[in-house]
Amino acid sequence: MGKALIIGCGGVASVAIHKCCQNSGEFTEICIASRTVAKCEALKEKLEKTTDTKITTAQVDANDVDALIRLIQEVKPDVVLNLALPYQDLTIMDACLATKTHYIDTANYEPEDTAKFEYKWQWAYRKRYEEAGITALLGSGFDPGVTGVFSAYALKHYFDEINYIDILDCNAGDHGYPFATNFNPEINIREVSAKGSYWEDGRWVETEPMEIKKVYDFPEVGPKDMYLLHHEEIESLALNIPGIRRIRFFMTFGQSYLNHLRCLEDVGMTSIEPILYEGKEIVPLQFLKAVLPDPSSLGPRTKGKTNIGCIFRGKKDGKEKNIYIYNVCDHQECYREVGSQAVAYTTGVPAMIGAMLVMNGTWRGPGVYNIEEFDPDPFMDALNRFGLPWKVSETPELVED
Amino acid sequence: MGKALIIGCGGVASVAIHKCCQNSGEFTEICIASRTVAKCEALKEKLEKTTDTKITTAQVDANDVDALIRLIQEVKPDVVLNLALPYQDLTIMDACLATKTHYIDTANYEPEDTAKFEYKWQWAYRKRYEEAGITALLGSGFDPGVTGVFSAYALKHYFDEINYIDILDCNAGDHGYPFATNFNPEINIREVSAKGSYWEDGRWVETEPMEIKKVYDFPEVGPKDMYLLHHEEIESLALNIPGIRRIRFFMTFGQSYLNHLRCLEDVGMTSIEPILYEGKEIVPLQFLKAVLPDPSSLGPRTKGKTNIGCIFRGKKDGKEKNIYIYNVCDHQECYREVGSQAVAYTTGVPAMIGAMLVMNGTWRGPGVYNIEEFDPDPFMDALNRFGLPWKVSETPELVED
Repeated sequence: MGKALIIGCGGVASVAIHKCCQNSGEFTEICIASRTVAKCEALKEKLEKTTDTKITTAQVDANDVDALIRLIQEVKPDVVLNLALPYQDLTIMDACLATKTHYIDTANYEPEDTAKFEYKWQWAYRKRYEEAGITALLGSGFDPGVTGVFSAYALKHYFDEINYIDILDCNAGDHGYPFATNFNPEINIREVSAKGSYWEDGRWVETEPMEIKKVYDFPEVGPKDMYLLHHEEIESLALNIPGIRRIRFFMTFGQSYLNHLRCLEDVGMTSIEPILYEGKEIVPLQFLKAVLPDPSSLGPRTKGKTNIGCIFRGKKDGKEKNIYIYNVCDHQECYREVGSQAVAYTTGVPAMIGAMLVMNGTWRGPGVYNIEEFDPDPFMDALNRFGLPWKVSETPELVED
Repeated sequence: MGKALIIGCGGVASVAIHKCCQNSGEFTEICIASRTVAKCEALKEKLEKTTDTKITTAQVDANDVDALIRLIQEVKPDVVLNLALPYQDLTIMDACLATKTHYIDTANYEPEDTAKFEYKWQWAYRKRYEEAGITALLGSGFDPGVTGVFSAYALKHYFDEINYIDILDCNAGDHGYPFATNFNPEINIREVSAKGSYWEDGRWVETEPMEIKKVYDFPEVGPKDMYLLHHEEIESLALNIPGIRRIRFFMTFGQSYLNHLRCLEDVGMTSIEPILYEGKEIVPLQFLKAVLPDPSSLGPRTKGKTNIGCIFRGKKDGKEKNIYIYNVCDHQECYREVGSQAVAYTTGVPAMIGAMLVMNGTWRGPGVYNIEEFDPDPFMDALNRFGLPWKVSETPELVED
């Protein structure tokens, strides 16, 4: 029983808020705050007849620490669940510190200008959070998030030591368009054009963009091409999983998707440099977004499933052992339940769970924590209850080395 | 020795005008007329110090028959060389008829709204041109144009009858961009998305777009993918080459070019339906053209060769016989000579030659003629003299059936 202040009102926040309202026993009250208060109001209006959770709304600029402090002082929440932009993690952490309020987020801080995903900025708050006696839970989405919980769970119940982790993120959803993006295509471009990296024997190994491609036969989905990418949870898992020798992250991309993206990049349509068109400066990427299907139109038409999970290789009682823990999520079922497809759903549900566990004191400790540092069992239990049931395979297909 | 009025001042016209100026013994005077007289002036200024040909310029709207008649009456040319847009063939033919002036063009009339390439509209002028005692020479470019001359030449010197013609148009030029077009990408799109067709046993056979693909090892160029397309000269050759059983036309397209074109089409960037962007209607195709490299920037950087020609299969003295007549043209050499690459060069040179042969009376006869109806020998001779030397192979690789 507690009160959460949720900052942000986009796709992931919408799922988390739906889930809080399904869990009124824990979330007796929530306040939804975002720059555009009308979005918060609309969600409140849709949900308040369906739930015992009391819903209030507020307008806030998440870049403004003083405004955030005033809001927290006014709302007096037990926890702040940050579902705003990753650029805004630090201002919200500052406001929580000033008001001694617990903090939960789903994606690590990245400076707006460098797009470097690293935990160092948020880990720098450890001592101050300890001294303030409050908890910050970092990365309570799916990946990072559930992948860390799966790792802690595997270590607790299946292994004496885990030596290899392969994190596999497969989105086999099909929206029926030859090409469309769920969000800003610039972020997609950056993802596929950035160097990859993985952790091995105590150091980072860098790869060329999309250099390492594997085919994996995903349970309930089938064989898909996947590519090794850098991903933020590797950084914390490398520190928190004893005995670890290698961690890799793979994400699936379809050939057609990559082909379209590269062609658009080739001709300059993904450029963020404005061109002069009939006397007006237009950014090609912005025009492309206007030509592409509206991302909000994809939800109702996306069919198929996601499969996200981790393959662990390690030792138990002196013997080698492999475990695959994964969740399969259906785009259409998610849409029917909360009006969002599986990409937002799989991030929004763990955000609610993380906030719940910190709020009710199950996960609590002064300082800044990554998710795998807490006892995974209550989180794993909540995943089953709140729409992201997981499976364990003890005879998984391994990803080739 | 005569005077030509050249209507149009684009890439092909620029080549033809350069070539007239290299041939001052025939073209003692030319008048360059276009909608934008500044382009004509610029060309005049560049060329007049290099040539004995007297150059004048004029402004004219080629859609306006009365304006054309006034211009012809004022300039008093021996011939009108039409290098304007294909939509404008009929207005210029009308003006030539009214002023009893010989007419030459390079591409057959197409109504602006239907994009149907057919000779019927221009052939309908036959009787009127006969009665006026003037000559219209249709299609004096390369294809149509030189391909018809090659056909007449093969028939005259190598065959008793020609049964099969395969016209092969290969552009192996590389401008170094992942994707760029020499002209309006809309025309490219239309070309690759239109149904193909060929002539066989007295009738048209239609194919799906890009359905028939062959690989051909072009002399001096190497193996290239080529696709069967409809092309206008098939229509006249089918009538003018006795004994013909089949005529096909193939054009090379690179995989990367086709792939980019299809991706752009997929996402809607080649659409001619305007979208609303920041309160302004913008046609995606027009915006794409603004993002793509300026076609005029391609000339200096295009490397490689074109190879355009015809493979003839027929009989001579009762025996089967195969002949391949082709021209190879180097983009860089063309650019050094006239400031245009080979695509414009291979059309502009035959335009000048056709105008010359009609003007000096070598090719003359009241009526409307396709190029293969005249004696090919003087044209073949002029090709060698004016930069498009041709070769004959008596042991060509055949295109598979």
